[in-house]
Amino acid sequence: MTVRVGVIGAGMIGQDHIRRITQVLSGGAVVAVTDVDAARAESVADAWPGVAVCPTGRELIASGAVDAVLVASWGPAHEEYVLAAIEAGKPVFCEKPLATTEDACLRIMDAEMARGRRLVQVGFMRRYDAGYQALKAALDEGTIGTPLLMHCAHRNRSAPPYGFTTEAMIADSAVHEIDLVQWLFGEHIVATSILKPRRSSRAAEGLHDPLIVLLEMASGVLVDVEVFVSAAYGYDIRGEIVGESGTVALAEAGGEVTVKSAGARSSHVPADWRDRFAAAFDAELQDWLNAVAARASTGPGSWDGYAAAAVTDSCLEALRSGRRTPVSLRERPEFYAKAP
Amino acid sequence: MTVRVGVIGAGMIGQDHIRRITQVLSGGAVVAVTDVDAARAESVADAWPGVAVCPTGRELIASGAVDAVLVASWGPAHEEYVLAAIEAGKPVFCEKPLATTEDACLRIMDAEMARGRRLVQVGFMRRYDAGYQALKAALDEGTIGTPLLMHCAHRNRSAPPYGFTTEAMIADSAVHEIDLVQWLFGEHIVATSILKPRRSSRAAEGLHDPLIVLLEMASGVLVDVEVFVSAAYGYDIRGEIVGESGTVALAEAGGEVTVKSAGARSSHVPADWRDRFAAAFDAELQDWLNAVAARASTGPGSWDGYAAAAVTDSCLEALRSGRRTPVSLRERPEFYAKAP
Amino acid sequence: MTVRVGVIGAGMIGQDHIRRITQVLSGGAVVAVTDVDAARAESVADAWPGVAVCPTGRELIASGAVDAVLVASWGPAHEEYVLAAIEAGKPVFCEKPLATTEDACLRIMDAEMARGRRLVQVGFMRRYDAGYQALKAALDEGTIGTPLLMHCAHRNRSAPPYGFTTEAMIADSAVHEIDLVQWLFGEHIVATSILKPRRSSRAAEGLHDPLIVLLEMASGVLVDVEVFVSAAYGYDIRGEIVGESGTVALAEAGGEVTVKSAGARSSHVPADWRDRFAAAFDAELQDWLNAVAARASTGPGSWDGYAAAAVTDSCLEALRSGRRTPVSLRERPEFYAKAP
Amino acid sequence: MTVRVGVIGAGMIGQDHIRRITQVLSGGAVVAVTDVDAARAESVADAWPGVAVCPTGRELIASGAVDAVLVASWGPAHEEYVLAAIEAGKPVFCEKPLATTEDACLRIMDAEMARGRRLVQVGFMRRYDAGYQALKAALDEGTIGTPLLMHCAHRNRSAPPYGFTTEAMIADSAVHEIDLVQWLFGEHIVATSILKPRRSSRAAEGLHDPLIVLLEMASGVLVDVEVFVSAAYGYDIRGEIVGESGTVALAEAGGEVTVKSAGARSSHVPADWRDRFAAAFDAELQDWLNAVAARASTGPGSWDGYAAAAVTDSCLEALRSGRRTPVSLRERPEFYAKAP
Repeated sequence: MTVRVGVIGAGMIGQDHIRRITQVLSGGAVVAVTDVDAARAESVADAWPGVAVCPTGRELIASGAVDAVLVASWGPAHEEYVLAAIEAGKPVFCEKPLATTEDACLRIMDAEMARGRRLVQVGFMRRYDAGYQALKAALDEGTIGTPLLMHCAHRNRSAPPYGFTTEAMIADSAVHEIDLVQWLFGEHIVATSILKPRRSSRAAEGLHDPLIVLLEMASGVLVDVEVFVSAAYGYDIRGEIVGESGTVALAEAGGEVTVKSAGARSSHVPADWRDRFAAAFDAELQDWLNAVAARASTGPGSWDGYAAAAVTDSCLEALRSGRRTPVSLRERPEFYAKAP
Repeated sequence: MTVRVGVIGAGMIGQDHIRRITQVLSGGAVVAVTDVDAARAESVADAWPGVAVCPTGRELIASGAVDAVLVASWGPAHEEYVLAAIEAGKPVFCEKPLATTEDACLRIMDAEMARGRRLVQVGFMRRYDAGYQALKAALDEGTIGTPLLMHCAHRNRSAPPYGFTTEAMIADSAVHEIDLVQWLFGEHIVATSILKPRRSSRAAEGLHDPLIVLLEMASGVLVDVEVFVSAAYGYDIRGEIVGESGTVALAEAGGEVTVKSAGARSSHVPADWRDRFAAAFDAELQDWLNAVAARASTGPGSWDGYAAAAVTDSCLEALRSGRRTPVSLRERPEFYAKAP
Repeated sequence: MTVRVGVIGAGMIGQDHIRRITQVLSGGAVVAVTDVDAARAESVADAWPGVAVCPTGRELIASGAVDAVLVASWGPAHEEYVLAAIEAGKPVFCEKPLATTEDACLRIMDAEMARGRRLVQVGFMRRYDAGYQALKAALDEGTIGTPLLMHCAHRNRSAPPYGFTTEAMIADSAVHEIDLVQWLFGEHIVATSILKPRRSSRAAEGLHDPLIVLLEMASGVLVDVEVFVSAAYGYDIRGEIVGESGTVALAEAGGEVTVKSAGARSSHVPADWRDRFAAAFDAELQDWLNAVAARASTGPGSWDGYAAAAVTDSCLEALRSGRRTPVSLRERPEFYAKAP
Repeated sequence: MTVRVGVIGAGMIGQDHIRRITQVLSGGAVVAVTDVDAARAESVADAWPGVAVCPTGRELIASGAVDAVLVASWGPAHEEYVLAAIEAGKPVFCEKPLATTEDACLRIMDAEMARGRRLVQVGFMRRYDAGYQALKAALDEGTIGTPLLMHCAHRNRSAPPYGFTTEAMIADSAVHEIDLVQWLFGEHIVATSILKPRRSSRAAEGLHDPLIVLLEMASGVLVDVEVFVSAAYGYDIRGEIVGESGTVALAEAGGEVTVKSAGARSSHVPADWRDRFAAAFDAELQDWLNAVAARASTGPGSWDGYAAAAVTDSCLEALRSGRRTPVSLRERPEFYAKAP
């Protein structure tokens, strides 16, 4: 069975997912695309055989030719499309964030529970990275004993050119670690704090870069995340978990070969997230296609999107206030119990 | 367009390719399978929807439902099926070796030239490994200057349980390096020698393991390949090229994470070639499907299969005689010039 | 000229320094030893030819046979002996801490300034480690641009068996990083905070282990130090400085060789500080002997001992209060300007 | 007891040993120096207090002020001075080679046996390197099982500016590996071969660089040594031993820190043998001073110097003839049995 996918949002991410489903993955076909910029939707549809343009997301979702929906529009529109897909009973893959407010996430969860079936997957692709999966396996196998703390770094060469804010360093960047640690440790974050190291003179106007984000897990595990979006030298994602009997850390990425030349031994640092996480993006969407075909739900869902939003809000409050801020989280419904 | 593939040989490798085309890759579908063991073919066809059983390879090749042929039978049958596919004008992917004798390879080349179109790809999947591709890029970009020599190691945990011979250490194992170095350096091997280090007491009866295979390139570049099929500790593939101004080497494989525990810092060594080269196998077959769909030929072809066979024969003679043995190679036809 | 050294304190550290001066270093000889346990002093003197026992530290310092004094007694006695050495006009090497209170450190500085010559070196041996020196060289050469933050980890296999406290994790362990970062960045720490991750069940009764110590430098550089004295797996000292254009980090220590065996690639993690810092201890004391012979002062001195004590006090207050705590530091006298 | 050392040869190596004994090591003092260039000897003696000039090596050896002799003159003079020291009953440390011919080595062994006491240590300093000692420990502890083969590389940035020959690549460079493997494996080399890879265009006139030297141990262990004295990028010494159950390899040297900058992760490659083996040179000479003081003999001796000379001669013959060449070695006298 081929899953017929409709894509909402034909920007860079949407196009990349179309390429992925069409040229890389198995079991899916993109049949429809829509975008607020109709010309862009036309141009994308022209580039890919078999892809029709739909005038609106609503119509795309309703179309009988579409089995499942991929939402890659800008964040504020996510809620509307995800709710519409749920209403239509169609599986929906939504790029992060699930929605831009906690309330919107709650409305999505309510709708999904009312529908009685898990239909939503959120684009937290790092869970599909072989490195993070090996971290989790080591944790789960007891390789390092009970976990106590974790050190993370999330470094980009430079922030997006326009309008990136200190808040976006949390909502767009640190949100990956926020989801990951809840998945890795199997528990929620209960409080957050933000520390401000010396500001880089390379940081864009108005941006306090780097930051340290502190995340306290329910068990007491303490996670520190360096978020540095003007790191200049490359895209570098680090993670080390310290347990009672040992540690486990992500290996350095990007070094297919080692060169010795001119007095140095060197290897490549990835340039950006595409370079670093290409395989994880592929694995994520393949898993979604497989789950859709099997009428199952295996990836991060609405609850995870909601929990990430709640922690993000706590971090933003901590940034404003300069204080440690508790996370307030609705009780986890049985519907979203871990093993679906 | 979906490439409809018929698979000849439903053993481990054939089944793995069926899984790959069906569940992992884009643009292909397995429609037919055949095997000398009819029951095995039936059982495989039952496991995969849409796959029909053909009584013989000949019939599979002739079938109108089959666009392209994948040969994964045992080596001595390769020639017959590849020739039949050429005769039928159908693209054929043939697992290494292309054929078991130089003469058979020459017959295949003659048939392909007579047909006037490159139809054959040989399963030298290591060319698709990201590590080897980075080695080649470093060479081609002049990162290390003119290459002078290369050190390789090819280590397996243990030899196949039955009937693996010292000759197979060359024809089945070292043949990968034989093809690779001709591709990496863009030139042929002109002579070979075999050295016999101390024999491992773990080696199977009759097996002289390990060996050192020496390959002399036309330019004088000297390649030493340690072939050690009873290496016990893991599957380990090493390669370092030494040039006039520097060196470039494959990084260690398999270490997604690093563990510190009990006085040691450690990472995983791959268990076998599946573990090490999974992505290369995927990339190889995707490239073939893409090439078939585009009526192009991009991978290693008949000439490469022939050249590998000729060097293998030289190595086997060197093994018998204990002497340095020249490689005698037909002149490379224009038809097989590098840029097709 | 051979520097004739008198050693006060014949415990493990004192004995190790005697061995070092006698068997490893150049230009020094131990001529006298004293200890509160007279029998221990006798036994040590018997073990080393040419070493006489002195009944008290005072007499040892006064002895005409002693050119320079090494204080390796317990901390509360440091002040008395260092002051006596200054009064006698003799160079003195004092194991950390310089003294157990800030006031005592101030008294030592006052005495040394009154004497008019720098006579005191404090045993912050990590400044002599090749790794830290390479970190400092990279900083000073601008390899990573302006520094912004630093991540450290200080892990021991297990705490000393008796009476080690959470306070000692700062005063005995983190004090190394406290001195180091002031030396590395060439500026003082202005505030500190303590974070408490989940407590290891392996930690001794009453010990909150691990801790995170946060150190804010005058420039805004933020340093986080994980202190974990029950880390079980080995002695592991990590440090990474993040600058505006890159990072520099201590390499992993202890791996003279890499072993591949049983599916893993592994190397040794040091067992303890002797294993890790043997060369730094040697370099430190050789530097001191050279400085004494040259009537110079090159190592960390009284000011550094005082500054470390002041920051330690700030950390202890932060531990008690749970709050960020400023460091209050006397203005640095001209006498202790950086280039003596 | 201070060992009073007389140094014959005041060139770069001799001066470095004087510095080492005077400023770095314990238990020795240089009291006399001589050189064929009297002015150089004067100038060196002036630079170091307490060092007298002797007009000739013979007189230096005979001097009552000299306890032990260090020979750092050019190779052809080694035999004369070593024999004279033996005759005088004084311990002698002789830089490699022990002598420039096998016959001269045999004369030294005969004289030493006649004298009835081991007096000679040869400057094979790599045995004192922590990396090689860890290799040997791993071998001896059975970490990798029975050894089968070894891969070595010996790379210099560039050959000495004048008169370095292809023969010197063996006699001056590979001789280190020749001694090492006999020490590591505890057995002799029985045959050698030389392979000639493509010649580097950077190699000096008349120099065939690089070479591969093949060494066959008595047990069948096969060692390949890449000798490349124009390697340009740095001084790089590699060694990996392959055993029946695993491998052990020297770690990369020189990387005290890792820098991430401009898209690369890099560390330092040593510039030359001083940079790489400084600690081994120190340990070697300290061991000699200790042995002299204890009237013992612990380091590589006359037999090792002779065995290295015999293998070197075999390699030089193999280079000339292009053929595998047996090593002919006198039977090892009881006097030179391994445990003295």
